[in-house]
Amino acid sequence: VLNNAAAFVEALRSGSVRALARGISMVEENAPGAVALLKEAFPHTGKATVIGVTGSPGAGKSSLVDRMVGSFRREGRRVGVVAVDPTSAYSGGAILGDRIRMQEHALDEGVFIRSMATRGCLGGLSRASADAVDLMDTAGYDPIIIETVGVGQDEIEIVRASDVVCVVLVPGMGDDIQAIKAGILEIADLFVVNKSDKPGADRLISDLDYMLSLASGPKSFRPDILKTVAVRDEGVKELCLGIQEFIRDAGDARREHRRKDRAETRFRTILSEKLSALVMERVFQGQELEQLLDRIADRTTDPYTAVGQVLARVEVK
Amino acid sequence: VLNNAAAFVEALRSGSVRALARGISMVEENAPGAVALLKEAFPHTGKATVIGVTGSPGAGKSSLVDRMVGSFRREGRRVGVVAVDPTSAYSGGAILGDRIRMQEHALDEGVFIRSMATRGCLGGLSRASADAVDLMDTAGYDPIIIETVGVGQDEIEIVRASDVVCVVLVPGMGDDIQAIKAGILEIADLFVVNKSDKPGADRLISDLDYMLSLASGPKSFRPDILKTVAVRDEGVKELCLGIQEFIRDAGDARREHRRKDRAETRFRTILSEKLSALVMERVFQGQELEQLLDRIADRTTDPYTAVGQVLARVEVK
Repeated sequence: VLNNAAAFVEALRSGSVRALARGISMVEENAPGAVALLKEAFPHTGKATVIGVTGSPGAGKSSLVDRMVGSFRREGRRVGVVAVDPTSAYSGGAILGDRIRMQEHALDEGVFIRSMATRGCLGGLSRASADAVDLMDTAGYDPIIIETVGVGQDEIEIVRASDVVCVVLVPGMGDDIQAIKAGILEIADLFVVNKSDKPGADRLISDLDYMLSLASGPKSFRPDILKTVAVRDEGVKELCLGIQEFIRDAGDARREHRRKDRAETRFRTILSEKLSALVMERVFQGQELEQLLDRIADRTTDPYTAVGQVLARVEVK
Repeated sequence: VLNNAAAFVEALRSGSVRALARGISMVEENAPGAVALLKEAFPHTGKATVIGVTGSPGAGKSSLVDRMVGSFRREGRRVGVVAVDPTSAYSGGAILGDRIRMQEHALDEGVFIRSMATRGCLGGLSRASADAVDLMDTAGYDPIIIETVGVGQDEIEIVRASDVVCVVLVPGMGDDIQAIKAGILEIADLFVVNKSDKPGADRLISDLDYMLSLASGPKSFRPDILKTVAVRDEGVKELCLGIQEFIRDAGDARREHRRKDRAETRFRTILSEKLSALVMERVFQGQELEQLLDRIADRTTDPYTAVGQVLARVEVK
């Protein structure tokens, strides 16, 4: 029955964990039927609060997310987690290791955890993780947490699919403030100083405060800075409340900015992936692509001329 | 005279540092004339050995590259460096700080150093950094070192423009081996264990050795592992020799693989960037894009249907 998109969406909505797992595999693999499923699911999305959690490796994001899951569970909410590692080619490899900590939630039917990595994911990981969020949303999970392993440009693209972006920092990494790159400052809605019982926490907060006073974000918006000690479950409830408060109260301009940014990122990501695939498929027959690449490698054709020849064959009606 | 691509290339070839700096700014900004310049320069490229250097932040890549520049200079070679930070939105920001260490080379006319970051770079950074390499190659710099700040997926794309990829690791980062993600194993031609006088270096090397014995790369190829202590200039000469040896001796299959990978990455990167820009420009007039994004944000149109409508207007002759 799951070959029919409408039946698939019904299975998701009735809470079938198997349907959800299979649906996410389909979007990862760009399987036939994945787009039909996403289109059918779309009207049922937009209900969940999507929380992005990013920050340097070693900042304790996994423990923090683990505790956040616990906190939301105590409110009786069903929680989805998409743990994404753009640098890992092994699906579920490194992250799955971290996720062992989440075993306490493994038997909890109110928690759905999925790891995603580059390998096993056809097309962009930011496209696929946003698709996975849509399916979890359809299945009634709320909130849905998108956790990234690192904090590079890919990770920024990935957490852009969120309603609220939390950036996790820890004191004593030497270059904490230097590590907060401008892209992060622009995307952060909340800063979390984890391991805030460690020396240097106050200095990190005052450095961050100073940096935020210099940064030019959307007018009249300045992210809050919250303190947690995830391993002792300290400050986690306050963080979860802070997130909900942000969603409810954030100035209209900021919320509108995040909403449009989320839509635009989604659209451009899908367009870029599908467009290249379409054109490559229609332009190159048999060995033509191989031969062209050989000419570029031999430097008998330059790549710009080669691209120009392809573009010359593209018409827009 | 630099408005004429042929004259521009002549200026590059005659060693004009000003022309080179301006040319790189043009490719960064996607300025009019950039593509014409790159096409004109292309027949003069392919002479330089392009060395990619990547690895975790804190691995001492900057110091190592600094020492490599010194070593190549002692052989009388003119060295180009492209330092790329995909996570920094500020052009030259974080990296420029590191580059202060390179001041000893700042007055050396035989060294050309350029920092590139996301901000100020229109289009993809991997496209722009490969373009910059082509211009340095045209200007006679050899070798050209592409150094990345981090080690994510973007960085892998960036160093793919190299003839040889060096991955720098350091002992005692706790999760060293776990940090070596599969994408890195596949791209590495040489591993460098920097700070190899630190405790844990031998263990790191044996862990790495074990990992390489498990990994399935192109058949019959296994990267060498070299030891350096960059701050004391130890092992750097051997590394530079090892790089040249790799270029000369690497099994044909490996060299062929790298050569084709380099051409394919280049072609696909440029195609994807130009194709999206072309189609977006021709499809959307006035406020149409804004309106479409609003409909996606409101969830009255799903992004796949929106992309499908755009693709339906694309024809390939």
